[in-house]
Amino acid sequence: MKKVALGIDIGGTNTDLAFVDRDGSFIADDRLSTSSFPQPEVFVAALAEKAKLMRKNLAEPVEIIGIGIGAPMGNINKGTIEEPADLPWKGITPLADLLREHIDLPILVTNDANAAAVGEMVYGGAKGMKNFAVITLGTGLGSGIVVDGKLLYGQDGFAGEVGHTIVRPGRSNRECGCGRFGCLETYVSATGLKRTLFKIMSDSIEDSELRDMSFNKMTSLDIADAAERGDVLAKRAFEHTGEMLGLKLADLVAHTNPEAIFLFGGLTLAKGLIMEPTVRAFHENLLSIYRGKVKLLASGLNSKNSAVLGAAALAWDQFGDKK
Amino acid sequence: MKKVALGIDIGGTNTDLAFVDRDGSFIADDRLSTSSFPQPEVFVAALAEKAKLMRKNLAEPVEIIGIGIGAPMGNINKGTIEEPADLPWKGITPLADLLREHIDLPILVTNDANAAAVGEMVYGGAKGMKNFAVITLGTGLGSGIVVDGKLLYGQDGFAGEVGHTIVRPGRSNRECGCGRFGCLETYVSATGLKRTLFKIMSDSIEDSELRDMSFNKMTSLDIADAAERGDVLAKRAFEHTGEMLGLKLADLVAHTNPEAIFLFGGLTLAKGLIMEPTVRAFHENLLSIYRGKVKLLASGLNSKNSAVLGAAALAWDQFGDKK
Repeated sequence: MKKVALGIDIGGTNTDLAFVDRDGSFIADDRLSTSSFPQPEVFVAALAEKAKLMRKNLAEPVEIIGIGIGAPMGNINKGTIEEPADLPWKGITPLADLLREHIDLPILVTNDANAAAVGEMVYGGAKGMKNFAVITLGTGLGSGIVVDGKLLYGQDGFAGEVGHTIVRPGRSNRECGCGRFGCLETYVSATGLKRTLFKIMSDSIEDSELRDMSFNKMTSLDIADAAERGDVLAKRAFEHTGEMLGLKLADLVAHTNPEAIFLFGGLTLAKGLIMEPTVRAFHENLLSIYRGKVKLLASGLNSKNSAVLGAAALAWDQFGDKK
Repeated sequence: MKKVALGIDIGGTNTDLAFVDRDGSFIADDRLSTSSFPQPEVFVAALAEKAKLMRKNLAEPVEIIGIGIGAPMGNINKGTIEEPADLPWKGITPLADLLREHIDLPILVTNDANAAAVGEMVYGGAKGMKNFAVITLGTGLGSGIVVDGKLLYGQDGFAGEVGHTIVRPGRSNRECGCGRFGCLETYVSATGLKRTLFKIMSDSIEDSELRDMSFNKMTSLDIADAAERGDVLAKRAFEHTGEMLGLKLADLVAHTNPEAIFLFGGLTLAKGLIMEPTVRAFHENLLSIYRGKVKLLASGLNSKNSAVLGAAALAWDQFGDKK
């Protein structure tokens, strides 16, 4: 019987799930709306039902080796989601325990960026690498750090919150969803890019097509499109975003000395726009002993499915037969 | 026959060496002046001779299990010292290879802060801990990070250069010995404390006993003594130093989620002066998921001998019989 892992990527808007085989092929996939479920118990029941239906509708039966779940603030030690800024559930959600009431399979929960890092290691550009990091740029900024071939979890399972390192200390700086001020993700993320653009629009008197769009309506894609069309303020917003990211990635290297850092997620699809200033600032800010040794790369995964692929990779990495 | 490790701590001014037994007792110790040896080959020959004499003069013969060396920019993979800012030797010094020409024993070289971290783990306050960091505050700021009971080395052996994370980016900020600007150690170290005091003296018109002392003559101990006597500017310099350290230690936690961080070295002897503002800023800047979970502590080692004790611990950790 064909073996598959069930990968689940829980995002603020949608949750993706898929059966993925050892080679990273999707056998089936589905989606449900996270934001429609204010109660986690109801969400988990719906999720389990989706998975069962997905299995039932397969042309051939499969053996499910286990479940890997990537979620913001997912805790590997406890199988919980703890105080996520971007999900409808507050406090601590015992996700693995809730899911086990419906499905009797081994379950791993970790944060979405850790899942992306394992995905990169199993299926992407980090194959064969032992020390690397993945930065996910979406609504927020996530990070997964791999040391000696294993995810860096730290004492409580919460290592790798680079989005919440502080770049501009003090209450006069940008407010973060975490309750503090000046966190990296308030500058470097889809939302951070937009905030930077609004700051630039407030400082400058130069014209921009984006001055016709409201904050709530605007997406990072709008800013990328405007930049591609030559909009000066939009280009400057990407420039500033990349500079700040490059600077803090040099700090990441000074902590963990990886072989490579991969940028992953929606914002990196605008490749030249974000990669170019990031790479420049990164190399400018690296300590000399690291220069020429640490690569800064776009993720080797297809971004559309890569979050759920990472979640499945997590299950393969942990529950699969070792190759 | 009694087993000992030979621990060697190479500092910018002096090099300490000692035979240390499994329990951390010093069987013999000696010192030579690092700065008197512009040629590393001559330094190593003198060092080897010192060790041989030290052994010869022992009341009872010992078996040396191996040599652990802590040195600024010591590289574990290659046994080299690479581009140290504070040593007389420029470029790359093949320290282990040079020493092997004189002594036929297993040799480990790592940076001094990594050695301090192993010392803390084997003999100090980190006994039994799996995830912690040690920050050494001396002329510069060093750091050793332990993950899952092992030193975090990263891809090239240079993980843990927290002193060279950047707190104030841009050329208008403090110049660092590494050639860049705004590195943490330009603010938080014995030298950084003095630079901060001189900045405060330049900004303020308040009186201070330290206004009678030159930059070159002043040490961090003078500033600590003045602060203890109530000197307002000296106290403010410690305050600022601790605030910046606490802020960046919160960043360290966001990378590696340790159970504890230990502060080690000369500057921490002025305990209340540096610990109090550091602890306050640290807890203020921690992301909520870490709050109440990460301890910030003074090193559990006696500071006078602890660097060389750490170097010996490195040898015990690697070459000793496992307890």
